[in-house]
Amino acid sequence: MDADLVKREFMAVFDELVAQLDAELASSFDVPPPAQAYIHKIMTYNVPHGKLTRGLAVLQCYKSFCGHAHELSAEETRQANMLGWCVEWLQACFLVADDIMDGSHTRRGQACYYKLPEIGLKAVNDSLILEAMIFRILKANFRSHRAYVELTELFREITFITEVGQLLDLTSQQEPGHVDLTAFTSDTLYRIYRYKTAYYSFYLSVALGMRLANVEDPQLYKHAERVCLAIGEYFQAQDDYLDCFGEPELIGKVGTDIEENKCTWLVVTALHECNASAEDRALLEANYGRNDKECVARVKEMYGKLGIPDAFQAYEQKSYDSIRAMIAELEGVMPTGAFEFLLQKVYKRSK
Amino acid sequence: MDADLVKREFMAVFDELVAQLDAELASSFDVPPPAQAYIHKIMTYNVPHGKLTRGLAVLQCYKSFCGHAHELSAEETRQANMLGWCVEWLQACFLVADDIMDGSHTRRGQACYYKLPEIGLKAVNDSLILEAMIFRILKANFRSHRAYVELTELFREITFITEVGQLLDLTSQQEPGHVDLTAFTSDTLYRIYRYKTAYYSFYLSVALGMRLANVEDPQLYKHAERVCLAIGEYFQAQDDYLDCFGEPELIGKVGTDIEENKCTWLVVTALHECNASAEDRALLEANYGRNDKECVARVKEMYGKLGIPDAFQAYEQKSYDSIRAMIAELEGVMPTGAFEFLLQKVYKRSK
Repeated sequence: MDADLVKREFMAVFDELVAQLDAELASSFDVPPPAQAYIHKIMTYNVPHGKLTRGLAVLQCYKSFCGHAHELSAEETRQANMLGWCVEWLQACFLVADDIMDGSHTRRGQACYYKLPEIGLKAVNDSLILEAMIFRILKANFRSHRAYVELTELFREITFITEVGQLLDLTSQQEPGHVDLTAFTSDTLYRIYRYKTAYYSFYLSVALGMRLANVEDPQLYKHAERVCLAIGEYFQAQDDYLDCFGEPELIGKVGTDIEENKCTWLVVTALHECNASAEDRALLEANYGRNDKECVARVKEMYGKLGIPDAFQAYEQKSYDSIRAMIAELEGVMPTGAFEFLLQKVYKRSK
Repeated sequence: MDADLVKREFMAVFDELVAQLDAELASSFDVPPPAQAYIHKIMTYNVPHGKLTRGLAVLQCYKSFCGHAHELSAEETRQANMLGWCVEWLQACFLVADDIMDGSHTRRGQACYYKLPEIGLKAVNDSLILEAMIFRILKANFRSHRAYVELTELFREITFITEVGQLLDLTSQQEPGHVDLTAFTSDTLYRIYRYKTAYYSFYLSVALGMRLANVEDPQLYKHAERVCLAIGEYFQAQDDYLDCFGEPELIGKVGTDIEENKCTWLVVTALHECNASAEDRALLEANYGRNDKECVARVKEMYGKLGIPDAFQAYEQKSYDSIRAMIAELEGVMPTGAFEFLLQKVYKRSK
């Protein structure tokens, strides 16, 4: 099926879910129309404007786990797409909360939700509402599915893991101006990658597809977790690379990781793997984490001198090869189409 | 059993749950000790410092639903108290989020959590973590209970209702300085009371006690809902009354509802039930919602002139009688000890 049709079908399920939640609110709760409209907007402003890779992945993963036993029925496709939207709802909950905590201005080419004058800090509660809606969708549509409990617990587990990741990220951030590069280790970096991003961005979609296909063997979930975390780490390293060396027009924002003193793949690699001399380190130390164009330019220049772009390409190739090898090992053990799909989505991406 | 012992037993279960969550974090997650300590503090700072009425109520309700069939075993008491703590955890999640949105300074006699210099807006994520812990406690301790799914769905449903209540409250609040008393109706007032407070403060504890006792008849939950919402409305009207006429030493804060232009029982009653003249209304209109001591004094004086304290006492008596009558009607239909317990906890309270 062509990608456009797949996406149109996916978007139709979003409209259906919004209509379902709107109707439930109008009929089962004593909420006046302006509050109904407000709740409608929480969803339509925040949920559907991303790349939708995570959401679309559930159907692909489900298909690969159903194998060639049968063509999916319209209802099976719809069910997988509903779970896909639950992943997008979860991301919306996180993004609304994260933007408040980071003081961000724009997101997905529009103003951050909390920045809208009529919203402000009400967004804290609205983030909780977005999370609650996931479980309303699950209850309304999967209550009689044999994996209902496992589906809800999966969302709860991955939600918690991601919140722990956000906590690790926030508590590891240094005060602006206070730069201590010794704290930037690859242990810290990869732990945040896994917790904050990899579980909900890759493992969740695959595990949902597996649950929907009634896969029960815990060992298969372990295999999926290992591959998905590897893809997630690679994806997040790309994110750091694109923040510094990507095209702002393609990635939708101007990167500010250097100014914001972020622990990124670039700075960790510069410090620990590119044979930075004491002098190079001192230059990084003096210019990193400063909101100053010249300082940022000096850091980028140092990245160039240390060969970070080449190092990234080598890392990218090594990651790709190692993930392909992991997948190859699983051939015959379980379907691997889901992993191939995700890896192709992220390999050498420019946005 | 005397109240002190009941409370000591309850507190012991808190320590046990914190130890359980701490241990799970240390053994199942790759989280370094400083992050473990941070998560420990999220719980101990926010969960246990309230009056604990909601949490203690679960055991009382459970007892009344078990009837005199048997003395509760230590394990049954522990289970009810764990569910009681889940209610307190939920309240902690809401209070952390609400204080951020309201810009509050103190809570339960200590600094609001988000006001701690080492916390700040990380509290948004920490509020999500507090919510997530409820479902970790349920999974760790009730996974094999026959009502496990219903217990988790009950928490989800009441959480959503409370979030809708917070949304109704926030979206009904007028801009400071912009006073439009026509918006202050008893419909608006009681809707917010029910959604934002009554469900989670009264119905949740009772319904948890019923679920734990394996009550299944939906009609009995409907009865409980009706009585609990009536108690909750009365409780919230008391809250408004105490904000204006209570002893700050007893209620733990100096009330600021008048300055903050809040829609309260007092202002709604003054406008709609105390025969306020056009002149009285104009005075209220001119002085309500202004951060000025003299304006507040004039509003309080008008409350006195219109007989608000007497009207409140009459309302209090009428509410009490009507709730007693509701309870009496249920005698023989279902155990009513839980309702009596809650009503006695709130009747003529001064804090």
